[in-house]
Amino acid sequence: MNSVTEFQQFAPRHPKDPAVVLLSGGLDSATVLAMVQQLGYTPYALSFRYGQRHSSELDAASKIATQFGAVRHEIIDLDLSRFGGSALTDMGLELPTSKTNTPHQNIPITYVPARNTIMLSCALGWMEALSATDIFFGANAVDFSGYPDCRPEYVQSFEHLANLATRVGVEEHTVRVHAPIITMSKSQIIQTGTRLGVDFSQTVSCYQANSLGQACGICESCRLRQQGFADAKLADPTIYQS
Amino acid sequence: MNSVTEFQQFAPRHPKDPAVVLLSGGLDSATVLAMVQQLGYTPYALSFRYGQRHSSELDAASKIATQFGAVRHEIIDLDLSRFGGSALTDMGLELPTSKTNTPHQNIPITYVPARNTIMLSCALGWMEALSATDIFFGANAVDFSGYPDCRPEYVQSFEHLANLATRVGVEEHTVRVHAPIITMSKSQIIQTGTRLGVDFSQTVSCYQANSLGQACGICESCRLRQQGFADAKLADPTIYQS
Repeated sequence: MNSVTEFQQFAPRHPKDPAVVLLSGGLDSATVLAMVQQLGYTPYALSFRYGQRHSSELDAASKIATQFGAVRHEIIDLDLSRFGGSALTDMGLELPTSKTNTPHQNIPITYVPARNTIMLSCALGWMEALSATDIFFGANAVDFSGYPDCRPEYVQSFEHLANLATRVGVEEHTVRVHAPIITMSKSQIIQTGTRLGVDFSQTVSCYQANSLGQACGICESCRLRQQGFADAKLADPTIYQS
Repeated sequence: MNSVTEFQQFAPRHPKDPAVVLLSGGLDSATVLAMVQQLGYTPYALSFRYGQRHSSELDAASKIATQFGAVRHEIIDLDLSRFGGSALTDMGLELPTSKTNTPHQNIPITYVPARNTIMLSCALGWMEALSATDIFFGANAVDFSGYPDCRPEYVQSFEHLANLATRVGVEEHTVRVHAPIITMSKSQIIQTGTRLGVDFSQTVSCYQANSLGQACGICESCRLRQQGFADAKLADPTIYQS
């Protein structure tokens, strides 16, 4: 495995500092967790059962958390489907399977209202209770450019809020919200994860994976992932529904 | 009932606009909900079962929601006690019953890490799913000056985040996070609520109320409330444990 010197800007202030890592069980957050471990943090992994269609990603998250040294993995139950407003949580809305989102399209129907803000807020609560100062967030602005809460200015704003919202933020102004893959392309993420030892066959990106975690191959998320492996010139290890 | 002309800065852009109101069942948020109704919004009330000791406040919240015209009242289950770090959710920590917090003390042990950020984030998700633009938040900076997430600069920062995090925020920059009682004293809140028809005997502020909603009379929150009625020169209608 190569070193991760290119990620030293995300290094812990002290060896083994705790860090809360948002872990969906998908390709992006698995790569971030591998990076966090490699950088020398003590990872605490946080996942959500929020009413998503594709809960097999949580089984994937558990395996990945164990593999990359998370000392604890919490799965929070938080039913966002009662609010509606997204094809990911509302079974009455149809998932898009046409071509992937491009930068100047509108926000896609798979966007879940305020989901990333809610998840980051819970990560902030755990971070503070752990007396930690670091959160890692696998948002990506390139592939999902239509999602408002995957942009660098959003992450910066959340970090600013975090330093006003918490004891450690107010007293020391040291809370950091890291989004280390936010400006990477999918193929760059795949190349990075591969270098860090991520087994992508264990990750679930599909919006409508079955209970075994097998992917549909046609949804927007599957198509982005397929293109990523093609662009990275790596074999796609994803297990598809037959 | 007097008019609420003094609150016109919080008025809806259009009559009957929907607004999400965080409603704990305590004195402060009951007053805010009464104000929201009086201003002409269509209120959507949001409460949380977050592992707090005093869940009888949720029964109070339901009654108050109905009384002040909430068209829907959602109670979200979100177990923050698993993270620990607060005397409100951690049964291993003792609640303070000595004198109340003053501006220059440290953050009190009853502070729940990131609780307000998590609650506001959920309100933001519901707001966006409702195609609304307004959130009401009963934070108060005067009595709870030791809580970082009850200060005006915190609320401003959350509003800034909300306009980066959501579809409506990015497209129209119109999300408003109102904290109409944030700079009021407890006695001013009580006077306002009384004018607006709030029956404070139905509200529960006590950190360790019993299952009937009867207050202990000795915790920090009870003491602040007692002092508020005394300062307002109004009879305290709170029902105490005998």
